[in-house]
Amino acid sequence: MRLRILALFVMFGIAATADAAPRECAQSPGKVIELCVWVENGQALYQVSRNGMTVLAPSALGLSFRGEPDARYTALSNPRRARADVTWEQPWGEQRLIRDNHEELTVTLAGDTRFNKEVDVTFRLFDDGIGFRYTYGAIPAGQDVAVSADRSQFRVVGPYQAWWYEGLGQERDEYLYAQTDARRVTLAETPLTLRGDKNGLYLSFHEAALVDFPSMLLRGDGAGTLTAWLMPWPDGVLAHKTGPFTTPWRTMLVGESAGALADSRIELNLNEPSKLADIQSWFKPGKYVGVWWEMHLNRTTWGSGPKHGANTANVKSYIDFAAKYGFSGVLVEGWNEGWDGSWIDNGDKFSFTKPYPDFDLPGITAYGKKLRVALIGHNETAGAIPNYERQLDAAMTLYEQVGIPIVKTGYVHHSGDIVDEQGGLQWFAGQYVVRHNLHVAQVAAAHRIAIDAHEPVKDTGLRRTWPNMVAREGARGQEYNAWGIPTNPPEHVVILPFTRMLSGPMDFTPGIFDIEHGQTELTRRVQSTLAVQLAEYVVLYSPIQMAADLPENYLKHMGAFQFIRDVPTDWETSRTLQGEVGDYVVVARLARGGKDWFLGALSDETARTLTQPLSFLTPGRRYEAQIYRDGPGADYRTNPLALEIAKQVVTSKDSLTLALAPGGGQAIRFKLLN
Amino acid sequence: MRLRILALFVMFGIAATADAAPRECAQSPGKVIELCVWVENGQALYQVSRNGMTVLAPSALGLSFRGEPDARYTALSNPRRARADVTWEQPWGEQRLIRDNHEELTVTLAGDTRFNKEVDVTFRLFDDGIGFRYTYGAIPAGQDVAVSADRSQFRVVGPYQAWWYEGLGQERDEYLYAQTDARRVTLAETPLTLRGDKNGLYLSFHEAALVDFPSMLLRGDGAGTLTAWLMPWPDGVLAHKTGPFTTPWRTMLVGESAGALADSRIELNLNEPSKLADIQSWFKPGKYVGVWWEMHLNRTTWGSGPKHGANTANVKSYIDFAAKYGFSGVLVEGWNEGWDGSWIDNGDKFSFTKPYPDFDLPGITAYGKKLRVALIGHNETAGAIPNYERQLDAAMTLYEQVGIPIVKTGYVHHSGDIVDEQGGLQWFAGQYVVRHNLHVAQVAAAHRIAIDAHEPVKDTGLRRTWPNMVAREGARGQEYNAWGIPTNPPEHVVILPFTRMLSGPMDFTPGIFDIEHGQTELTRRVQSTLAVQLAEYVVLYSPIQMAADLPENYLKHMGAFQFIRDVPTDWETSRTLQGEVGDYVVVARLARGGKDWFLGALSDETARTLTQPLSFLTPGRRYEAQIYRDGPGADYRTNPLALEIAKQVVTSKDSLTLALAPGGGQAIRFKLLN
Repeated sequence: MRLRILALFVMFGIAATADAAPRECAQSPGKVIELCVWVENGQALYQVSRNGMTVLAPSALGLSFRGEPDARYTALSNPRRARADVTWEQPWGEQRLIRDNHEELTVTLAGDTRFNKEVDVTFRLFDDGIGFRYTYGAIPAGQDVAVSADRSQFRVVGPYQAWWYEGLGQERDEYLYAQTDARRVTLAETPLTLRGDKNGLYLSFHEAALVDFPSMLLRGDGAGTLTAWLMPWPDGVLAHKTGPFTTPWRTMLVGESAGALADSRIELNLNEPSKLADIQSWFKPGKYVGVWWEMHLNRTTWGSGPKHGANTANVKSYIDFAAKYGFSGVLVEGWNEGWDGSWIDNGDKFSFTKPYPDFDLPGITAYGKKLRVALIGHNETAGAIPNYERQLDAAMTLYEQVGIPIVKTGYVHHSGDIVDEQGGLQWFAGQYVVRHNLHVAQVAAAHRIAIDAHEPVKDTGLRRTWPNMVAREGARGQEYNAWGIPTNPPEHVVILPFTRMLSGPMDFTPGIFDIEHGQTELTRRVQSTLAVQLAEYVVLYSPIQMAADLPENYLKHMGAFQFIRDVPTDWETSRTLQGEVGDYVVVARLARGGKDWFLGALSDETARTLTQPLSFLTPGRRYEAQIYRDGPGADYRTNPLALEIAKQVVTSKDSLTLALAPGGGQAIRFKLLN
Repeated sequence: MRLRILALFVMFGIAATADAAPRECAQSPGKVIELCVWVENGQALYQVSRNGMTVLAPSALGLSFRGEPDARYTALSNPRRARADVTWEQPWGEQRLIRDNHEELTVTLAGDTRFNKEVDVTFRLFDDGIGFRYTYGAIPAGQDVAVSADRSQFRVVGPYQAWWYEGLGQERDEYLYAQTDARRVTLAETPLTLRGDKNGLYLSFHEAALVDFPSMLLRGDGAGTLTAWLMPWPDGVLAHKTGPFTTPWRTMLVGESAGALADSRIELNLNEPSKLADIQSWFKPGKYVGVWWEMHLNRTTWGSGPKHGANTANVKSYIDFAAKYGFSGVLVEGWNEGWDGSWIDNGDKFSFTKPYPDFDLPGITAYGKKLRVALIGHNETAGAIPNYERQLDAAMTLYEQVGIPIVKTGYVHHSGDIVDEQGGLQWFAGQYVVRHNLHVAQVAAAHRIAIDAHEPVKDTGLRRTWPNMVAREGARGQEYNAWGIPTNPPEHVVILPFTRMLSGPMDFTPGIFDIEHGQTELTRRVQSTLAVQLAEYVVLYSPIQMAADLPENYLKHMGAFQFIRDVPTDWETSRTLQGEVGDYVVVARLARGGKDWFLGALSDETARTLTQPLSFLTPGRRYEAQIYRDGPGADYRTNPLALEIAKQVVTSKDSLTLALAPGGGQAIRFKLLN
């Protein structure tokens, strides 16, 4: 009976047309967010308010398809509502238990073109944001369609600041962020974070569950409206789909602090549950060292020859170091054939199974096994995806055989020269590369191998579904502190927690102790104090964390090194305690299954003193705070190594004063005493 | 009778609908360019071929309006054709006589929305390019409409290189150009120049006759399609118009060499004839010096105080210098109240009539009059347009009274802080500023004053209609060689002739002889040889050319200075003899009403030897070539001042070998001997 009424309503809706403009509205579980959707003047529109204040003005919805004009939507019908309040467990992560508490509203739009005749829009409303996606369920199975536009908009109201970099013309997500009036955004990668000039709000726009669809960027119109922009195929088509299909989620986080964005879990909640039930039996979070920074410093080479870094003796010495100091892995880059000459332009020459002659793969992995240190594999593709896919299964088979649990992949290439099987030039996160990205993870999973993608498709929370996607790069990481011109300024690591990190774990590779590494100019070396290098392990979450410097440099600072040895990479819970985008951040995390809390604080180039209540600690318990702070006179420009290590007993009733030097930070382990 | 037949056709056209897809085509006078326009699938499309090769694939047409959806165009009707082949005379310019030889095709599109019910598209086809514009003639007089999109596209076919800079987020057109695959263009200022990777073609996209409409940029889609993007009002509306109205022209130049773009006159031909019949009686092309570079070098200041540059004694010394060496003007910046403190943020404090006490305006102009040297006025607004407009007539009245023939205007401001009368934040070339730009020229014209706008709305050939718009900036000029980080690299001045200069004259201000000006780093000083500073007077056209350096520096190089004294700023004809975008250029110009030719050649950072036939000289005549060339060992990095001055007698049958140093150039005067 209910179905029949709905069907009548649908017919009436179409016949009665848009002028009636029936609105469907929904509220988030705590009544914080309200969203309405309707059809007006040929457009499907939604708007969002938060506690009664408009956050998004009426913003367009819908896709367009090649071969037909932009649809005019004439009716909205068949509202369906659902709610969920479930808590699920991550196999590893920044937080073990995740609550998914949302209201769902689905409506059917009637459009006046063939493929837009009937489209469902599903909204999920959380107290800290929303997501929506399209289901083109009426396109017949087997019908090929070409998406020509994603009309989805976010029309913010009033002035905002935005942290962003230009998303087009680029070959990867490795740029310094600029802060501008949000109306000056041209085409920005997501997560795109905005701070209201007057309304006290923080917003972040992104997407979730990016599967078989192009990556979304946001295009500004010069007046504050952001519209989805999908990386195209070479022929301009955005997505090739076969009916029926569902799109990724378009998301907006909204909160009253920068930290509220960082602590939102919407991204994960909008992804499907795990398909890898046994992941915990073959992937374990951990820390690693590697034959890596020495190449970035040009002490050794990726390619063969007298300076080849990936030689058996060198790797074994890293394994020895790892074993001695509690690291579970050793990354080795440059171990395989293909690096000689101009490798970026010759990705087809890479072999993913043939080691250089001076790299004894089975010998090394056997040696590591004895010392309980695993080799972390490395597959640089130079963007030659067909070459990689041809070898992928053989490579993963080999790695599984010798006991490599994690593979770091790489897609370094020049802008626009990812060449597909048909010779087409592909964008670095168009549908073609998005498909490849998941394909690699799936093949790896079949071999019980985890993936750490560099120059990746951006994270959209897929680690929930495929928890062997353990980390990725996707921002300007530590490597730029070796050779970047300029190297990362201090503000970079206090922008990342509120931008890039909203999408998921990052393999930033902290822990460079030789801050100056032989450079005399500030902009050619690490621009931080030593304490920052420790705090980054807490602030910049990843289940695998590198200690990126040369072993010899850790041996010179054994006090500081102790923090790296102690800090876990898997957490029971995480909280962003204070912070402002680009200014500073304080994060606390509780070790998973453990009792110790860890705190990381970072500042930009400005010295600042923060008061931090310790109310996150368990009441009634005593902790030894093992504090690694900027020492007297510390300054990232003139005195970066000044570090003071102190201990004091604290409880949840105490506050700590965090004195951060210019370009400084602080790292604390709160060791449970009773 | 003819009218009635057309009317019937219109009705039939609408009734018979789009499926018939009648195409209207036209060819340029020499049958080089063919253009067709039709309606298909709700879209109005045009395409362009050149000598049978497709240059633009089917590309969209039309505007959209707020309050209604994008129109679907259902019929094309009422084709009207016209042709013109007329030659008209410029009062001043790079070429005295301009031939306007084109075919015109106008069609009427029927759209299915109220404001798009009937729109005329007029195409003009030249052998070296096209222009088209819209006439919304059916919108009733007095009906306000808000343009919400310009759907006009240029869909280029195949791979091209593009020279461009990001057009959004910026506050003025002062950026170094990047060269990328054209598919990587995000949002580019026009003229946007492309070079085919394979097809041998050079294209440039721009607009003409920008009046009461926002400036157009071009947005890339990542796959080669460029779509018009208009700088919006603060509320997102692109243009506020009242029916009926006509848009500016959207233009494409196409040729088989970079020089063919530079020598096209389409830009001027698509503007209306002059409204200032008597311009020649009050504006004369000429050269000037000024109290300017000394401020950029921080030797004196714009603001008041002990280092104030615009003091009477200093200005009189410039007037003396100008009179002695044949300059007709002296520019003085910092003469008026408002410069003290943070003037960029306090544009409202500028007075355009009150001189600083140490600047004796009537005394200076009277002194100049005796020596036949005019004061060139200066109005820096800091983007505070309402403040300027309030004072505009009083200021121009004063300037006319004291005999100031030219005013240099300025709009230095921070991105997005041009504030209109309603407090709205305006783009630097949105409709509001475009209106202001023309308003200033019109008020100035009423006072017989010419305008040299800096930080201007880009040139679109309006100097034909308002020939008191004599020059403007609109690119990274010489001033960046004082304090830019980096200063302009050598390639900059061999990109400009094929990009910015396609739009019209530029007040680049050549002639810095003190190349190093006390700087030790290459990227902090002028990056050119001395010969380049001379050649720029020929290559970078403007009817007013500054000798930008301090007088004392000219006195140290009297040989080189002779070329600046000799070179005219008004021309009978101009020809780009050879050149490649960003590599090199050779330009020859014949002095207006004179007999001498002048040649300028520039190279990028690469030394090169060019063979230049002199067939442009009048056959049978003998000329003394006065050659200013890079001397032995000249190099912009290590030996920029090496200059060799030589003379030889040549005829049109000779060729010259132009040996250009790295970052070098050559300037030649061909003095007619018989």
